[in-house]
Amino acid sequence: MADKFTIGLVQMKSRASAEENLTHAIAHIREAAKRGAQIISLHELFHGDYFCRTEDAKLFDLAEPVPGPTTARLAQVAKELNAALVASLFERRAAGVYHNTVAVLDADGSLLGKYRKMHIPDDPLYYEKFYFTPGDLGFPNFDTKFARIGVQICWDQWYPEGSRITALGGAQVIFYPTSIGWHPHEKAEFGAAQLDAWRTMHRAHAIANGIYAAAVNRVGFEGKPEKGDAGLEFWGHSFVTAPDGQVISEAGDSKEEILVVECDPAKSEDQRRNWPFLRDRRIDAYQPILNRWIGK
Amino acid sequence: MADKFTIGLVQMKSRASAEENLTHAIAHIREAAKRGAQIISLHELFHGDYFCRTEDAKLFDLAEPVPGPTTARLAQVAKELNAALVASLFERRAAGVYHNTVAVLDADGSLLGKYRKMHIPDDPLYYEKFYFTPGDLGFPNFDTKFARIGVQICWDQWYPEGSRITALGGAQVIFYPTSIGWHPHEKAEFGAAQLDAWRTMHRAHAIANGIYAAAVNRVGFEGKPEKGDAGLEFWGHSFVTAPDGQVISEAGDSKEEILVVECDPAKSEDQRRNWPFLRDRRIDAYQPILNRWIGK
Repeated sequence: MADKFTIGLVQMKSRASAEENLTHAIAHIREAAKRGAQIISLHELFHGDYFCRTEDAKLFDLAEPVPGPTTARLAQVAKELNAALVASLFERRAAGVYHNTVAVLDADGSLLGKYRKMHIPDDPLYYEKFYFTPGDLGFPNFDTKFARIGVQICWDQWYPEGSRITALGGAQVIFYPTSIGWHPHEKAEFGAAQLDAWRTMHRAHAIANGIYAAAVNRVGFEGKPEKGDAGLEFWGHSFVTAPDGQVISEAGDSKEEILVVECDPAKSEDQRRNWPFLRDRRIDAYQPILNRWIGK
Repeated sequence: MADKFTIGLVQMKSRASAEENLTHAIAHIREAAKRGAQIISLHELFHGDYFCRTEDAKLFDLAEPVPGPTTARLAQVAKELNAALVASLFERRAAGVYHNTVAVLDADGSLLGKYRKMHIPDDPLYYEKFYFTPGDLGFPNFDTKFARIGVQICWDQWYPEGSRITALGGAQVIFYPTSIGWHPHEKAEFGAAQLDAWRTMHRAHAIANGIYAAAVNRVGFEGKPEKGDAGLEFWGHSFVTAPDGQVISEAGDSKEEILVVECDPAKSEDQRRNWPFLRDRRIDAYQPILNRWIGK
């Protein structure tokens, strides 16, 4: 049986500059490691504000190569702390080819690989299709020093297919770096149901696959109402679900927090023995799932 | 936009004989129709006790052809009440070929078709692999007079693939006839988490697909502790989830109940416009979901 391992979730607010965010993220990573975390994840696009609230070609300047300057900085930190890192970045791959990418750094500072967000949303104030080319690396797993992990980014989490394929790859935990929040004008009417639906989907991934699921969201308001930008209130609530679907650690919706949670592969083993869903999958009959639509 | 329609969920206890169960089910169906239900579902294998608690070849005598005597009786009721029916039966297809099957009867009494349970469990006291040949009809939809519907049976509900394919077929609501309960010796330690996980998965199907999900479970204890058969305590809790994931009607865990719930296709339309998950599915990248396992 695989060893227990400890994950860290860094729930942060965005600061004014990329450098401030990186410095602050590193401080949080150090704190998480000090508290025992071995695999530490930041939220989606931790480098700055959630810039997809507007479509502006100048914002492509925020992108950087992966590996690049930020992964170089984080690799030093990973090595120093003997901790693996899950870092979400705006990747410049080529002129006109940008991705929403997670770099997975192992505890020796090596770059284990990348995951590029596969499902790209496009909603009012979440104009991601303007910025991000859909991922082309599939649903990989990464063997960190401490555990085999998978990554799904924000919108990906609404798709059972992505989490299923990642779990079939052997991931013991899936990290979901996220930037999700409320539209201020919708919050009163729909806010509670939206948050509840988001939590429900994460928990369902853990249950259906018998894995740990770690959602790492940003927190805090970003916008300029005085300039007509109503903004988004990112709802935090980073949390970890155990393989039986129970939430075992959860942050609040208003401030920066670090969650440090021990994960026990024996719990996955036990869950999959007692609710052996993977045994009975009808892989002979799932072909229609590759269609866009089947109905009339 | 499609018209609103009203569904009925009959949560029953098992009685001594098949005839008593059928008579009682018909009485409940009448009551549901009287209260406005147009599409009415019974729980899984409503004809009797959940017989899969033991492996006994004599119990194959309980099976019947579909269509057969029970669908003939129910067809009369459907026609009389102008209501479509979702009826779960133990189907004898041929010597040695038995299925856990749902017959869908339309409001004119015609048999619209069958769904044969695709995922067959096998757990202590749920020895279904002994009785049921896995389904070979895929994940169909049925155009009843009032709405297009899909069916998943009990264990199927743990598989996002089944609900996804059924939803892609255009189902406005998926019915989940079910026989799920607690092992009495496990209830204190795991009971709450098990029920919670079950509810969570149903709700996730509704959210991921923007559909109504209707779970119809049996209720009550079945077993003979005095004869060493510890039995199962079926937990009821039949419920309906709206396309936004919110539970809009729910039964308790101890008695027979009938739920009658109006469903509005405009709510699915609205949900899918505002959370347009189906737009962004990566059907080019889901091929690995057809594997049993991908990891090392």
